[in-house]
Amino acid sequence: MAASITLYTAKICPYAHRVELALEEAKATYTKYPIDLQNKPSWYAPKVNPASKVPAIAYGGPPSPPEDPSPESEKIAESLVLIEFVNDLFPQAHLLPADPVLRAKARFFIEFSTNKLIAPYSAFQRTGASADDFLAGVVAVQELLPADGFAVGPYSLADVAVTPFIARAFVGLRNEIGAYDEGEGKKVLEALAAPRYARFHKYWADLQARPNFKATFDEPYVTEAFKKRFGGLRAQK
Amino acid sequence: MAASITLYTAKICPYAHRVELALEEAKATYTKYPIDLQNKPSWYAPKVNPASKVPAIAYGGPPSPPEDPSPESEKIAESLVLIEFVNDLFPQAHLLPADPVLRAKARFFIEFSTNKLIAPYSAFQRTGASADDFLAGVVAVQELLPADGFAVGPYSLADVAVTPFIARAFVGLRNEIGAYDEGEGKKVLEALAAPRYARFHKYWADLQARPNFKATFDEPYVTEAFKKRFGGLRAQK
Repeated sequence: MAASITLYTAKICPYAHRVELALEEAKATYTKYPIDLQNKPSWYAPKVNPASKVPAIAYGGPPSPPEDPSPESEKIAESLVLIEFVNDLFPQAHLLPADPVLRAKARFFIEFSTNKLIAPYSAFQRTGASADDFLAGVVAVQELLPADGFAVGPYSLADVAVTPFIARAFVGLRNEIGAYDEGEGKKVLEALAAPRYARFHKYWADLQARPNFKATFDEPYVTEAFKKRFGGLRAQK
Repeated sequence: MAASITLYTAKICPYAHRVELALEEAKATYTKYPIDLQNKPSWYAPKVNPASKVPAIAYGGPPSPPEDPSPESEKIAESLVLIEFVNDLFPQAHLLPADPVLRAKARFFIEFSTNKLIAPYSAFQRTGASADDFLAGVVAVQELLPADGFAVGPYSLADVAVTPFIARAFVGLRNEIGAYDEGEGKKVLEALAAPRYARFHKYWADLQARPNFKATFDEPYVTEAFKKRFGGLRAQK
């Protein structure tokens, strides 16, 4: 019998979403256990993740309830560590290509999009910083994309890592959720409609069409959760 | 014939040092090309790494001088991407263990030591922040170490990633190089001499005894380069 996998996750969290996407893509059998990030259960830090964050996985050990995982199971945290772990557990899913150069390009894409796309979007949303760096990041990421297909051609961990953040950026922009002035979200969406961003939109359409995305992204839930969590940022500025 | 590897590196840089350690550990045949970080050659950004940083590798393609690498070679950057690349190129070197759980623990160790050890030391050196977080990080990293051996038992990328930063921290502390008050370096070294840090010292002794470290760390050079580069931090505070 394969070792059991319990994923501690939260629908709002892009880091946890990465691991859900990887597990779905690998067609893994796993137990999904939701953690309320605003009201974490008292057993979570001592029994699962001392850093008290999601995602985390309890792997193997004797059968036990998620609320009381066996001390014999391995507890593993950090989203990028976990998606590599899923790839190592399920090599037949080819979450990384076999070619070392393409594997390096996939890992570079994660690093690059984190710095050039995710970080500037986060600054725009959280502090009301200019959206120019984010738009420049969309262009920079676009330049890494091949003419067709995903980040390095075949679907890979590179796509797994960036998808949750693009999904949440669009939720934020469409609903004007952030510290920026009301209306700025729509302006960014209008800017993104220009033909120069066409490759990015194609990429995003491909990511959304993937079954692992449909199985893991609850847009109405994330929209409401974002409004509750970040809806006050503008007033606080 | 195996594809050629040209590593663009700099002795002062801990990120570049990671890749040298991985290549030496893998007994790779490669060309080391030093980049003067204070006076980078004009061809470096356009021909090798648009981010203009070391480390970078030019891999494969027809024979060409490091100063004019073939457009057909693959150019790859980012230290953690590159050490995974070396592992993928030289699987027989076992730079990651075969067991997926141990691989995950090695990658987690890198993430954890970056946040808990490297970042607080950097804050101490660059801004004169308290050394308490660094000392707490030493304890936290120690707690991840097994009773014997390296970060996850056998030598791995986890050790490759942290070694250059520990080496440079000791150079800084012994020579009082940083924004902190003169004498604070020695105080931290005295604090670290306490028995509670014994496991860390054993780990550091094991890392230094490794042939890949002896082959790649030029302590007199790094000491002088650190004095030149960071010796003015105290006066600027």
